[in-house]
Amino acid sequence: MSGAAVDLNADLGEGFGVWTLGDDDAMLEIVTSANVACGFHAGDPAGLARVCRAAAARGVRIGAQVSYRDLAGFGRRFIDATPEDLTADVMYQIGALSALAEAAGSAVSYVKPHGALYNSIVTNRDQARAVAAAVHAVDPGLPVLGLSGSVFFAEAAELGLRTVAEAFADRAYQPDGQLVSRREPGAVLHDVEQIADRVISMVTAGNVTAIDGSTIDISVNSVCVHGDSPGAVQIATAVRDRLTAEGVALAPFS
Amino acid sequence: MSGAAVDLNADLGEGFGVWTLGDDDAMLEIVTSANVACGFHAGDPAGLARVCRAAAARGVRIGAQVSYRDLAGFGRRFIDATPEDLTADVMYQIGALSALAEAAGSAVSYVKPHGALYNSIVTNRDQARAVAAAVHAVDPGLPVLGLSGSVFFAEAAELGLRTVAEAFADRAYQPDGQLVSRREPGAVLHDVEQIADRVISMVTAGNVTAIDGSTIDISVNSVCVHGDSPGAVQIATAVRDRLTAEGVALAPFS
Amino acid sequence: MSGAAVDLNADLGEGFGVWTLGDDDAMLEIVTSANVACGFHAGDPAGLARVCRAAAARGVRIGAQVSYRDLAGFGRRFIDATPEDLTADVMYQIGALSALAEAAGSAVSYVKPHGALYNSIVTNRDQARAVAAAVHAVDPGLPVLGLSGSVFFAEAAELGLRTVAEAFADRAYQPDGQLVSRREPGAVLHDVEQIADRVISMVTAGNVTAIDGSTIDISVNSVCVHGDSPGAVQIATAVRDRLTAEGVALAPFS
Amino acid sequence: MSGAAVDLNADLGEGFGVWTLGDDDAMLEIVTSANVACGFHAGDPAGLARVCRAAAARGVRIGAQVSYRDLAGFGRRFIDATPEDLTADVMYQIGALSALAEAAGSAVSYVKPHGALYNSIVTNRDQARAVAAAVHAVDPGLPVLGLSGSVFFAEAAELGLRTVAEAFADRAYQPDGQLVSRREPGAVLHDVEQIADRVISMVTAGNVTAIDGSTIDISVNSVCVHGDSPGAVQIATAVRDRLTAEGVALAPFS
Repeated sequence: MSGAAVDLNADLGEGFGVWTLGDDDAMLEIVTSANVACGFHAGDPAGLARVCRAAAARGVRIGAQVSYRDLAGFGRRFIDATPEDLTADVMYQIGALSALAEAAGSAVSYVKPHGALYNSIVTNRDQARAVAAAVHAVDPGLPVLGLSGSVFFAEAAELGLRTVAEAFADRAYQPDGQLVSRREPGAVLHDVEQIADRVISMVTAGNVTAIDGSTIDISVNSVCVHGDSPGAVQIATAVRDRLTAEGVALAPFS
Repeated sequence: MSGAAVDLNADLGEGFGVWTLGDDDAMLEIVTSANVACGFHAGDPAGLARVCRAAAARGVRIGAQVSYRDLAGFGRRFIDATPEDLTADVMYQIGALSALAEAAGSAVSYVKPHGALYNSIVTNRDQARAVAAAVHAVDPGLPVLGLSGSVFFAEAAELGLRTVAEAFADRAYQPDGQLVSRREPGAVLHDVEQIADRVISMVTAGNVTAIDGSTIDISVNSVCVHGDSPGAVQIATAVRDRLTAEGVALAPFS
Repeated sequence: MSGAAVDLNADLGEGFGVWTLGDDDAMLEIVTSANVACGFHAGDPAGLARVCRAAAARGVRIGAQVSYRDLAGFGRRFIDATPEDLTADVMYQIGALSALAEAAGSAVSYVKPHGALYNSIVTNRDQARAVAAAVHAVDPGLPVLGLSGSVFFAEAAELGLRTVAEAFADRAYQPDGQLVSRREPGAVLHDVEQIADRVISMVTAGNVTAIDGSTIDISVNSVCVHGDSPGAVQIATAVRDRLTAEGVALAPFS
Repeated sequence: MSGAAVDLNADLGEGFGVWTLGDDDAMLEIVTSANVACGFHAGDPAGLARVCRAAAARGVRIGAQVSYRDLAGFGRRFIDATPEDLTADVMYQIGALSALAEAAGSAVSYVKPHGALYNSIVTNRDQARAVAAAVHAVDPGLPVLGLSGSVFFAEAAELGLRTVAEAFADRAYQPDGQLVSRREPGAVLHDVEQIADRVISMVTAGNVTAIDGSTIDISVNSVCVHGDSPGAVQIATAVRDRLTAEGVALAPFS
């Protein structure tokens, strides 16, 4: 499919102090956009500075992966934060990472909520609006990366923010286009070839097979590959190689 | 002394979540520069956003009051942080506060180290250089507020940063111009009239009486008044009133 | 009503480092049981040690006021913690406070969940069971203080823990015996005489007027007075004085 | 050398939330004493509970590995904590771990300071006394594990605490018996056979070759093997196997 291009994004910078998670250097050789942690669920400043420099050196775009304040829970637990707190927390994180990214000769080019916050604002309007307001307050030109059809995208669009829809390479979908919960069997795919096949289908045909066997339409500007699961680098490499083999260029979303 | 002007600075935004410290609103009516906490020794993002908006509304300039990462110790304990960590920690804090200050229609206009970090870099060259490098990396045009004659000022000047010397309204000085340690008797002055007299002497005559009775020269671009001690607002008001009565304009350092 | 006795409890030790909240010393002169913070929503160890010593010196009983891990939110935000994490978090807090209480010559004599955790486990069975399991694992003889009729009490009773029902001096009740949400008008009472009257009614007659004017039965082993609201000390004093005047002894729940 | 016995200790439980460090399960098959983190430099409560249960199941004794409050620095940075704060911080940590250890059917049987705190109290008398006072306040029967000849041991002995001297399997010693700083070349040994030889010499002959080639006396009740370095499990296994082969029994210090 000549002419096609897609962005490949992954979560990076998710260590903290002495602790590491995933192989940032390997993933930076594969992805075109790096969702860099901002210190609230992971990421000490020195580690974030290093990943920003590494991303800048490879021409990988940097996004701010903002989260609830929850190191102990890695941002994976819903917190009933007030909109005022959440807006300020997100602004704080974007600003903090921006200083590190800019000193590395790059910049924060987009914002992607992390973990439980990502999931919450698919439906929680108060929190969705709070996150969108934060991005808008920092820079109305910053796009947000997230789930097509989410309340977050509606609130972001309302404020004039650009929304960039992502698909997940290794996650099963429900017939309505939502993700199958991680608590359900079959929610996460592990077969490298199957994952690569699905990504090709999403990107070139605009559809994917849902968990019930039906074919559903899916709109994709960016494909998310995981950086911290077993086999993460192998899966990401396979996805990249198959896209290239199919003539799809890997490039940051425009 | 017609034509004279001086800046008045105080530490603000030093609550955290439910906890408050000092009377930020009262102090913002008095000072011309607000050293706003950045979350590492104090300051939750929502509280910092509020003080940034209040400062912007009154035309009070905002500086980033950067600290060691130490909420439990309020940044008052020396931490043997590596230069790499310290540089990134300071950049992170400046960036975080910048996002909040800019959304309030203002900006971070200078950097002032807090507490134990302030004291450490009077003499600790590795940490002084690390802080100066952080400011320079974020914005080489940002001035630093600190102690004249400190190693920090030497390192900052080396990098081309502008250094702004401050004096302390309520602190006793040694004959060599250093502060008397808080652990010594007489280190902190409490008499409102005496404090106001000393500030006038510092600002208009360029000298002050040291703890041994000798008169020492002192160079002052900004006077620091405390915001969180008992009687803080009263002392700050007296200093401001006396400066005005003596014909010294209160204005942000140029 | 001769022979009657009731316990008076309040939240104490809720500062953190340099920050203070409420007047612990004044409250310790009034209450018979101190719900001491455990470091997760408030309370640095040195401050907790001080309040434990002060409570022990006055013969005020110490309880562990356990919370979600959330200093920034003061434990007032629901966190979707897993049961495994919550059980371990609560055990950790009880143990930590026990060491400080025992060194002060006292002990942790009961457990009272704080803030959002208190509210969550009125209905959230997984979290209620996790908290009850934690108390049971530390010491099956530790009573729990909480809301009569809550899922937490059911789970605690299931494990054989003793449950101690508390009433709130300054909160409005719904006709079904639940608290009126703080977000509703009239949820918190401020009139000192009215508050004292209600406590007398709860303790001596076993009933109270609900927000709709109906009279409801209420079972009370302990009355909670707040330590950190404006007028807290005045209200607590009035409650204590009225109970004493009515012949109700103030004593730790048996 | 028939009849000889020695304790083998290692640092465990040093992950935090999603982050892991070292292979606790493998180390628990080797050591006789586990220095379990207490949450201040590492160790979320659920993870600590798991390692306590695993240690109890294998009959490995549990010690409290207490630290400065410094997750970001993994407790490896000196903090100028006041004695009051440090005493309470250490008591808090011992108590917290005790609750988890006791629920696992075991107990905290000794205390070993971690990282920068370990190093500080070799010479810093105020902090050494503060740590010893904490252990004594929690339980005067708790032994402390540390460096022979340290100020910490002097202060602990002053309070009547039992001191247990440890040697480091993989660290070089100065002629005066102190450790060679990690910043010096040759400070850490990596050769498995050499490490095992040195341990045999320490335990059976009571001496070891210092970095200058001289032979120094060394008194050893426990040998520390590292759990988180590359090759940690292999080194620990070799040390254990050699001790066993030489007829030295592995057993918790008496």
